[in-house]
Amino acid sequence: MNKIKRLVIIGVGLIGGSLALALKKKNLVEEVIGCGRNLDNLETAKKLGIIDHFTTDPTEAVTDADIIFLAIPLGSIRDILSQIKPHISSKTIITDGGSAKQQVIDDCLAVFGEFPTFFVPAHPIAGTENSGATAAFDSLYQNRRLIITPHQNTAQTAIETITKMWQACGSEVVQMPAQHHDQILAATSHLPHLLAFGLVDTLASMNENSEIFHYAAGGFRDFTRIASSNPLMWRDICVANKEAISHVMEHFIDEMQQLADLVKAGDSEQIEAIFVHAKKARDNFIDS
Amino acid sequence: MNKIKRLVIIGVGLIGGSLALALKKKNLVEEVIGCGRNLDNLETAKKLGIIDHFTTDPTEAVTDADIIFLAIPLGSIRDILSQIKPHISSKTIITDGGSAKQQVIDDCLAVFGEFPTFFVPAHPIAGTENSGATAAFDSLYQNRRLIITPHQNTAQTAIETITKMWQACGSEVVQMPAQHHDQILAATSHLPHLLAFGLVDTLASMNENSEIFHYAAGGFRDFTRIASSNPLMWRDICVANKEAISHVMEHFIDEMQQLADLVKAGDSEQIEAIFVHAKKARDNFIDS
Repeated sequence: MNKIKRLVIIGVGLIGGSLALALKKKNLVEEVIGCGRNLDNLETAKKLGIIDHFTTDPTEAVTDADIIFLAIPLGSIRDILSQIKPHISSKTIITDGGSAKQQVIDDCLAVFGEFPTFFVPAHPIAGTENSGATAAFDSLYQNRRLIITPHQNTAQTAIETITKMWQACGSEVVQMPAQHHDQILAATSHLPHLLAFGLVDTLASMNENSEIFHYAAGGFRDFTRIASSNPLMWRDICVANKEAISHVMEHFIDEMQQLADLVKAGDSEQIEAIFVHAKKARDNFIDS
Repeated sequence: MNKIKRLVIIGVGLIGGSLALALKKKNLVEEVIGCGRNLDNLETAKKLGIIDHFTTDPTEAVTDADIIFLAIPLGSIRDILSQIKPHISSKTIITDGGSAKQQVIDDCLAVFGEFPTFFVPAHPIAGTENSGATAAFDSLYQNRRLIITPHQNTAQTAIETITKMWQACGSEVVQMPAQHHDQILAATSHLPHLLAFGLVDTLASMNENSEIFHYAAGGFRDFTRIASSNPLMWRDICVANKEAISHVMEHFIDEMQQLADLVKAGDSEQIEAIFVHAKKARDNFIDS
């Protein structure tokens, strides 16, 4: 890919910061402008070499940008787009990292009237439970999938530029319709996060709170890791993708109710069948 | 502690094998006899230096044992106790590693009439998703908690011997009533395993099965790791601890239903409150 002259990262956290670091490591970007509301975080990002300059003013940040990467919670995208709209240069491509794509497309339609040719809705399937600039690292996207969910208006040239950018970071780039993306991610990412938050909240609300956690083992640490994720980001994802999430949650609650009934009845045969099926699916997933 | 002359491990898998390896590493056992139904596994265990001799006959295995460690699924304990009962030497101490303690106590009462002074119900809070002799490793119990749930008949000397044995493996040994143990473990271990099995089974039963797993990220791998655990062992735990598990599952299903309703309603304020509460509890748990 051609070197990016000016990359603007709005939201310099784990997702935004890691893209900047990956591109810098490959010497594929000349200048990275960071933008966000938290001045301390921006100063940290500059010290860590993630960004070269920063501003808290999005309208200033986007001046003369080649690529703008929106790496902010989904609930903030519409507002930021409205702010920067009058300041976007004709050469600029905008892309994002939001975990629910239909909502981002709707935001674009709301702000721009018709969907802009220069907007490439995208989602890197990568992350950790940590957030902020200090959580960023240059290999986050290596061997990860990145899903682009183009609108019919999105320009092919814009899609190609963003595809090459992510491929340069080590990602496998695939395309699919936004709705399909949202259904898959509801199942594999959004639901597990809700379960983890829900489980820890359940336990924390029970009487023996601190004692319960005292006797938790290694599996519990792994199992609940994602409950340490950014609550505001996940709140926004739940609202943005509420239909697909509600759908899979309904399935899951039914399954848990069925399991609860089997446990209550001591039906070891049926319990075993479910566990064996799940283990097989999980082992296959890990081998694949 | 004094060196154990003859340690008998019934069930030479992750739990049983790791105890043998830990004691051997510290040179605290002269001879380890392995017993199980799977001859291949026993041969592997001998090749790996986990056990010195083996037999598939429990009545033969327990001859002249100093300590017998039952590391078998909970559903097999009563049958094994019945088999070995006539062959237990007067010097023998029996202990177990079962994840539900009231059931083990009930098994002892059923087999022995009154609770035997030489039986020490215990549970190492440690494990991985792997099983079989090849999964065993000598540091599994290092810095882990081990819970002893003595019956009032259990001899203090037997408790002391088993306490020292586990401490020698690096465990912190605590005592509590069986029922209390079962309630805590239902929340921190049994429920998370049920959720993981239930989640993977839910996803595997949905249409887009293989595609769904294809787009799962790193968090999903961690979150579902415990769904690769031994299905038979977990089936037995569910049946053995069904009351405590049913109780926490009810709480959890209520919580998930509440979350589902909030997501459906797009109630970001309430969703945020739950996520923030959960993250705080999880971060505190990890720091502790």
